Amino acid sequence: MEKDAVVLVSGGLDSATTLALARRDGFAVHALTFDYGQRHAIEIERARAIARDLGAATHLVLAIDLRSIGGSALVSDAPVPRDRDDPTAGGIPPTYVPARNTIFLAVALAKAEAIGCRDIFIGVNALDYSGYPDCRPPFLRAFEDLAALATRAGVEDGARFRIRAPLLHLTKAEIIRLARDLGVDLAKTHSCYDPDDRGRACGRCDSCRLRTKGFREARIPDPTIYVP
Amino acid sequence: MEKDAVVLVSGGLDSATTLALARRDGFAVHALTFDYGQRHAIEIERARAIARDLGAATHLVLAIDLRSIGGSALVSDAPVPRDRDDPTAGGIPPTYVPARNTIFLAVALAKAEAIGCRDIFIGVNALDYSGYPDCRPPFLRAFEDLAALATRAGVEDGARFRIRAPLLHLTKAEIIRLARDLGVDLAKTHSCYDPDDRGRACGRCDSCRLRTKGFREARIPDPTIYVP
Repeated sequence: MEKDAVVLVSGGLDSATTLALARRDGFAVHALTFDYGQRHAIEIERARAIARDLGAATHLVLAIDLRSIGGSALVSDAPVPRDRDDPTAGGIPPTYVPARNTIFLAVALAKAEAIGCRDIFIGVNALDYSGYPDCRPPFLRAFEDLAALATRAGVEDGARFRIRAPLLHLTKAEIIRLARDLGVDLAKTHSCYDPDDRGRACGRCDSCRLRTKGFREARIPDPTIYVP
Repeated sequence: MEKDAVVLVSGGLDSATTLALARRDGFAVHALTFDYGQRHAIEIERARAIARDLGAATHLVLAIDLRSIGGSALVSDAPVPRDRDDPTAGGIPPTYVPARNTIFLAVALAKAEAIGCRDIFIGVNALDYSGYPDCRPPFLRAFEDLAALATRAGVEDGARFRIRAPLLHLTKAEIIRLARDLGVDLAKTHSCYDPDDRGRACGRCDSCRLRTKGFREARIPDPTIYVP
């Protein structure tokens, strides 16, 4: 019998690859996606298609309006940085969403405890990334420590929830090759922070630039549709 | 100038008292309430009245559907325990909501970072309580450790977010006396897990029993309207 796991799925390249890895490793996947008021809400539809394609057992799309909290260019109409060669130059960029992964992992933990599983997958990456604090190993370890104290399962049964981040130390090119090898339909993944109203990628935000660089280095044709 | 603080306000006795304490200590209060699918949704209206009465600077009521996650009698139609003398006998009761305070504190952290404050108040109590793991001091400390790693403020500025739980070691009777002394309108606070459709308290759930015992021990008349 397959072990259950909760997998955070944004609709992006990294979380799609993470879902595919969880399936390869024999997990029954309970996909969890957030409709949080992100300006690139098209990724939610991509997340649905990806979860279906890759054989998720269940998929919950949960609404939580982080726009009402603010503090980020991703949940407001503030401009996102463009045409930067180094997304981490100048510190954590304005696309950082306050405590986003803390909120997402907290809900994933609730889901994991409710269905009685101990494994939570998240597609964070600390190499070709934007320097977000909540993508780093010390954050993930601190969350595991918290989870043991926060839950009935942790306190009564001594359960240790595992935050699995299998992409943590891969380059974007390595992730893209892995995704291809695992059968992820790369054309369905969405990375752009600032797509046009037809869902076409801008090609210029940090996320697009990390993605295009990754495809180039992986020597795989980039199927993304960019704004002309 | 007043320092800002985020205060979690459920509409219950403990969080109302916590809000009053934050005001007394000179904080400008940003109240945060969750509409999470709780069966006792009347507490949300009480939270609005309490935040207004006690002079909160802002009040955000955020919807997040924990009913879609389940795992608790408070977000389902499963029965809540009644007529128990000791709410912690038999371990953590079925009214425990998986990872609820982790989720609530994560959103409070996002709000605190977005408005640039460092203080988060929560009305948890580890004395006259139901044994929930996420009401205990080690959980609160672990959350502070996480917050320092999870946020831009923590990583770039070395900020330390403080989870303030001023009721942690008070009895329910002490909380009730404190609430009265701080001018909390006790009649507006709602504790019952299982009110009738007119919002009247059942008098028999763990939360009602802790409350009535507290009023009795405090020798203060209980203004709660109970089901006859």
